[in-house]
Amino acid sequence: MKKIEHIGIAVKNIENSNELFKALFGKEHYKIEDVESEGVKTSFFKCGPNKIELLQATNDDSPIAKFIEKKGEGMHHIAFAVDDIEREIERLTQEGFTMIHKKPKKGADNKLIAFLHPKSTNGVLIELCQDLKD
Amino acid sequence: MKKIEHIGIAVKNIENSNELFKALFGKEHYKIEDVESEGVKTSFFKCGPNKIELLQATNDDSPIAKFIEKKGEGMHHIAFAVDDIEREIERLTQEGFTMIHKKPKKGADNKLIAFLHPKSTNGVLIELCQDLKD
Repeated sequence: MKKIEHIGIAVKNIENSNELFKALFGKEHYKIEDVESEGVKTSFFKCGPNKIELLQATNDDSPIAKFIEKKGEGMHHIAFAVDDIEREIERLTQEGFTMIHKKPKKGADNKLIAFLHPKSTNGVLIELCQDLKD
Repeated sequence: MKKIEHIGIAVKNIENSNELFKALFGKEHYKIEDVESEGVKTSFFKCGPNKIELLQATNDDSPIAKFIEKKGEGMHHIAFAVDDIEREIERLTQEGFTMIHKKPKKGADNKLIAFLHPKSTNGVLIELCQDLKD
């Protein structure tokens, strides 16, 4: 794992939160993106080598809607950048971690992604992500 | 804000979690530190330019004990590295954020730190931290 690629933050209203994080960082988000397959709208802020991803549910079945219902707004996941996601999934599985995705899938921001189950990681939802070649 | 300095993760048993995060990162923690004033034991892992800080309560009044009682183990705070913490506290206060610490205080890992109140930041507990000169 090379670095924290981003922290995902579950929010109720992404327009309001864009204003809030703009004030926090002193600059605008650089990208918004809808991920229909996950039922989320996203917005990305850069912070040096890292990013913050705001996530708002677009329907009641979205994992983000369920998270906010249970825990309220706040930190949702940590994503780590990896060079070879398939090899990392294999390594972590051998180490005894439970993968939610045993094969990488296409995520937001032009990445291949896979999540680990938080039950095997102290309640922390962890995402692996690998840049997709253009 | 220059980067994510670290993510703080609240854990029940830091020895068990050290083993877990060692398996996750494929390497040992590089530092352990007791912060008596906060009632926590900490353990730090490097991940490229970022760190993960594991936090275990050492008494029942510790903020970490209260956090775990309420929310369970998991992500506790995001710390951002800043060059001039006093100036950043002033800027954020003017932007309307609520500081838990209006003046920086000494934190773990040789830093000056100050926390923002999560009520003003979408439920995310945010720490500012500035390296202390040796």
